[in-house]
Amino acid sequence: MIKTIAFDADDTLWHNETLYTVTQEKFARLLVDYKDPADIERELYDTEMRNLRLFGYGIKGFTLSMIETAIELSDGKIRGYEIQTIVEFAKEMLQAPVQPLEDVEKVLSHLADNFQLILITKGDLFDQETKIARSGLAPYFQGIEIVSEKTPRVYIKLLAKYDVEPHQFLMVGNSLRSDILPVLEIGGQAVYIPYAITWAHEVVEEGEAQKQYHVLNQIGFLPELVRQIN
Amino acid sequence: MIKTIAFDADDTLWHNETLYTVTQEKFARLLVDYKDPADIERELYDTEMRNLRLFGYGIKGFTLSMIETAIELSDGKIRGYEIQTIVEFAKEMLQAPVQPLEDVEKVLSHLADNFQLILITKGDLFDQETKIARSGLAPYFQGIEIVSEKTPRVYIKLLAKYDVEPHQFLMVGNSLRSDILPVLEIGGQAVYIPYAITWAHEVVEEGEAQKQYHVLNQIGFLPELVRQIN
Repeated sequence: MIKTIAFDADDTLWHNETLYTVTQEKFARLLVDYKDPADIERELYDTEMRNLRLFGYGIKGFTLSMIETAIELSDGKIRGYEIQTIVEFAKEMLQAPVQPLEDVEKVLSHLADNFQLILITKGDLFDQETKIARSGLAPYFQGIEIVSEKTPRVYIKLLAKYDVEPHQFLMVGNSLRSDILPVLEIGGQAVYIPYAITWAHEVVEEGEAQKQYHVLNQIGFLPELVRQIN
Repeated sequence: MIKTIAFDADDTLWHNETLYTVTQEKFARLLVDYKDPADIERELYDTEMRNLRLFGYGIKGFTLSMIETAIELSDGKIRGYEIQTIVEFAKEMLQAPVQPLEDVEKVLSHLADNFQLILITKGDLFDQETKIARSGLAPYFQGIEIVSEKTPRVYIKLLAKYDVEPHQFLMVGNSLRSDILPVLEIGGQAVYIPYAITWAHEVVEEGEAQKQYHVLNQIGFLPELVRQIN
């Protein structure tokens, strides 16, 4: 019997990746005089991966990687005002409205009556906290956990904290790598709801994902799925 | 009777502000051709304060503010390779060794036998987690809490989480604004151990601080103070 349902936030409860995609397009347009758009995208991704160990996830690290990429791709010729434009991208992203996905509020309000709901999100603490506040969804959750990585170890700790057995735990998210596989590994259940876009870093090979999990196209079907599981 | 002792991390358990000071000096040297060092420092602080609401605390936000300041102060004339130097400052800071202050390990090891020890730190989640890991001090703490602000509300929540009454709680830190005043406000006790340098943002007026708290010059005296309190 499921007792606790945990939700990822970005691209599970609200749009997020689109914000990065839109910014990357603006970034490519800014550098169009220096380099080909396809090269820009690849180079930015490489820089992000190289810096991930130091910067972690989130808008500020992404922005520092954009700045570094811009300098590299322009052979140092990028101008001060162009770099300032990149800093402004960061400020826009940090203030962007938090737009819940369809049916999210209805589903949370319904499930909150019978289950302990937890939000488990990865990323920049300050940024995630302000997004959760702006989303207006915080009251549905009995716990909000902002973690730097979503590994099996991290899930084990959280389950202990909330006094939940793995078989009573259901994780809902859009990333196989972060939300689904590590939860299956510790004996929990998981619902995968793909988002329109997946960040390349979160993509896992099909082979790795050949385990038992549920797939939904849309969060609106979640209450019915939970009813069937229980 | 004190039951739980909480410690701030940066500049209470290990050196931190010196890292920012050293970086600011490098930053001023980098911009020496564009502007007077005193102007640079003032302008950087103003930019940091303006951006704090969006960026929060931590090295990445500080770096974005350095970049913005460099562009402003140079009237956009700053070169790509100079901006890259600023990005490299960030990487150095993020990898800098974590250097515990004198007597810290001895004191923690002593107090851990009789008290519940908690670490409560503000700042960038990813950065603080890696610092705690690098410090080697994590095993002394029964809980590690990384928060985006240290307000009375945040302390009330943490005390509830650890099931501690305010009068059983002692907070140790180097910032009157973050570690001492909010804890006194909720009825807890506090030990102020000033660090050699205090970030301007954390400085509070004497008037605000006319409340009852303990002051130590050095953390080595803490066990004796706790013995006297109890």
